[in-house]
Amino acid sequence: MRTTTGMALTTPGGSWEPYRFERRDLRPDDIAVRVTWCGVCHTDLHAAEDLAAGAAPLVPGHEFVGEVAAVGGEVTAFRVGDPVAVGNIVDSCGVCAACRSGNEQFCAEFPTTTYGGRDRVDGSVTLGAYSGEYVVRESFVYPVPSGLDPAGVAPLMCAGATVYEPLRRWAVGAGQQVGVVGLGGLGHLAVRFAQALGAGVTVFTSSSGKAEAARALGADEVVVSRDADAMKAQADRYDFILDTASAKHDPSPYLRALRMDGSLCMLGIPDRYEPEAMALMFGYKRLVASGGAGRPRMREMLEFAARHEITADVERVPARDVGRAMDRLSRNDVRWRFVLDLADLG
Amino acid sequence: MRTTTGMALTTPGGSWEPYRFERRDLRPDDIAVRVTWCGVCHTDLHAAEDLAAGAAPLVPGHEFVGEVAAVGGEVTAFRVGDPVAVGNIVDSCGVCAACRSGNEQFCAEFPTTTYGGRDRVDGSVTLGAYSGEYVVRESFVYPVPSGLDPAGVAPLMCAGATVYEPLRRWAVGAGQQVGVVGLGGLGHLAVRFAQALGAGVTVFTSSSGKAEAARALGADEVVVSRDADAMKAQADRYDFILDTASAKHDPSPYLRALRMDGSLCMLGIPDRYEPEAMALMFGYKRLVASGGAGRPRMREMLEFAARHEITADVERVPARDVGRAMDRLSRNDVRWRFVLDLADLG
Repeated sequence: MRTTTGMALTTPGGSWEPYRFERRDLRPDDIAVRVTWCGVCHTDLHAAEDLAAGAAPLVPGHEFVGEVAAVGGEVTAFRVGDPVAVGNIVDSCGVCAACRSGNEQFCAEFPTTTYGGRDRVDGSVTLGAYSGEYVVRESFVYPVPSGLDPAGVAPLMCAGATVYEPLRRWAVGAGQQVGVVGLGGLGHLAVRFAQALGAGVTVFTSSSGKAEAARALGADEVVVSRDADAMKAQADRYDFILDTASAKHDPSPYLRALRMDGSLCMLGIPDRYEPEAMALMFGYKRLVASGGAGRPRMREMLEFAARHEITADVERVPARDVGRAMDRLSRNDVRWRFVLDLADLG
Repeated sequence: MRTTTGMALTTPGGSWEPYRFERRDLRPDDIAVRVTWCGVCHTDLHAAEDLAAGAAPLVPGHEFVGEVAAVGGEVTAFRVGDPVAVGNIVDSCGVCAACRSGNEQFCAEFPTTTYGGRDRVDGSVTLGAYSGEYVVRESFVYPVPSGLDPAGVAPLMCAGATVYEPLRRWAVGAGQQVGVVGLGGLGHLAVRFAQALGAGVTVFTSSSGKAEAARALGADEVVVSRDADAMKAQADRYDFILDTASAKHDPSPYLRALRMDGSLCMLGIPDRYEPEAMALMFGYKRLVASGGAGRPRMREMLEFAARHEITADVERVPARDVGRAMDRLSRNDVRWRFVLDLADLG
C-alpha cells in the first residue's frame, strides 16, 4: 500500500486535521497522482455538514490537478511527470446504455464518486483529493491543457464540467439569450463558457453588489432577482436559463423568463423542485436538471477552455487552512472558488 | 340580440337550471352555431365547484358540435347547415409570437376561452355551449369530418386536442414506447391517438379494474401504478409519458420510468408540480406540461381522427340531466365522456 496525508474530518462536527491513510497499490490500469491543487466545492461543505459518525473519516475533494507520480503496468496514455486532472467520477460500469453513450454520470450502477463512493474492485469507500496523492484508473484521468494556470483548472473539473455540459447539451450558441442564475463557483464559469459559446448572457443575482463583477466576467446584463419589476421585464426573453443557485428556491420566475419552448436547467439538488404548474405549462417551458458530465464532454470542456483561455478565478489556500475556507464558503464569501494547495501535505 | 337557453348554475352550490340569456348579434365574421352535442369536461366540474358569487351565472361547455344556423356578412368558409365544431378557444390577439406561430393557447394577451373568458370586442364574459346556440368568430370554427359520429367528435375538441397536441409536439411515432397515465376522458383518447401514431402504448392506472378496458382501447400493456414492483420494472423504458391524471400527485415514479432524455408531459394543473430533484436529474428527464392546442393542430387533429376513425366513447345525456352527469363525473363514474344532448333546449 501507498501512504499519503489528507485533510479529514474524523468525527462529525469536529475540526479539520491532517490524517494519514493508505492508498491502494497500483493496479495495472491505475495512475498515482501527486495532487497539487484541489478545488473546494459546495458538495464538500454539504458532505462535512451532513457527516454521519459511521461515514467518518471524510476526506473530500473531487476537482483536482497534479502530476503523474507512478503508473501501473498497462497504462499507456500517461507518463510520470505528466500534468493531469481528475473530476468527480473515477469509475463506472462501462457497459450500460449511459456509459456506452459517454454519459457515465448516469451509469445504471451509479458512477463511483471521487470520495464517498464505493470502489468497484475492492469495495472500499473512496477518500478524496484533499490529500497529497490520489490513485485512479487511467481512463478517468485527463491531460491538463498547456497554457492554463493549473490552480484555475482544478475547479473546471467539477464546477466547469457541471455548467459546460448542459450549455452544450442544449446547444447554446450565437443568437441565443442565456440566463445564469447565481454568481459563485459555478455561475462565474457559466458566464464565461456561455459568453465564449457566443450567446448573450444575463446574470440573475440576489445581491446587487455582484453586478460589477458579473459584467467584468462577461455578462451583458445583470438582473437583481429580488426586484419584482426587473424580473417581470424579463418575461419571454431567454432560450435557456442555467440555475446554479444551490439553496432551494422557486424556479417559477425563471420559467416565466423563458421564451416558448425554452428550457430551465437546475443544478442545485434539493429534495424536490416545486414549479408553479401554470409557469411550466404556458409556453411549453421545459424543466430539466443536470449533474456532472461524462468523459467525452470532460475532454471537450478542457479543450474548449484551453482554446478560449477559460479558467476559474480562485483564492489559493494552504490545505491546512481548509476549515477557514469552509467557514467562508458557508457564507458565500469567496470570489469565486477556493483551491487548496496540497504541496506541503505530502 | 339573439336569445338562447342554457343549463346554468346561477348561485354557488345551487342546482343546474335552464337559463335564458342573450347571444350577441352577429358581427361580420361571426357564425351562430345551433349546438347539438357538448362534452362535459373536468374543467366544467371544477368551474362549478369553485364558482364565486360574483362569477355567476356559469354556463360551461367548451367542446361541442352543431350546425351553422346563421352567418355574418363576411363569413366565407361556412354556410348555413354546415356541420361544425368548436373547442375551448374562441379568440386571441392574433399578432403576438404565439398566435403567429399557431399557438393561440399561449397568446400573450391570453386566449379568450369559450366560457368564463372576456370577449375582445365588447368585454362581456363568455357563456359556454351547455346551450342551444353559440356565437363565435369564423376563424375559431372547424368543419366536422364526415363519417364520424358527431356526439363522439364533441370531446375531441378539448379532450382530444389536449392529448393529441403534446403527442405530436414530441413527435410520438413508430418505434417509441409511450405511457399514458390515467384512463378517463383524456386518457382513453391518448391511447387511441398514440396507438394510431404507431407507438407502443402502456396505460398506467391506479385501478386494476380498468385493465381490460385499456386493452380494448388499444393499449399493449397495463401497469397498476399502486403496484410498487410493477412500477419499478418500468424504469428506463419510455420515450414519452403523457400524464392525464387531474388530481395532484407525485410525478417522480413516471420520471423514473422514462429513458434518458425522455419527457413527462403533465396535463393536470395543480398549483405546483413537485418532482424529486434526483428523479429529474438522473438521466436528463424533461418535465413539461401542456394545455390545449392552437388552430393548425386542431385542424390536423380532426383530419387525423377522420383518417383513423377516432372518436371519444361517450355516454349521451339530456342537457337537463347535467347535474346527474356532474355527480357521476366527480366519482370518475363515466366511460369515458359525457356528452349533453342540446337538441331540446332551444
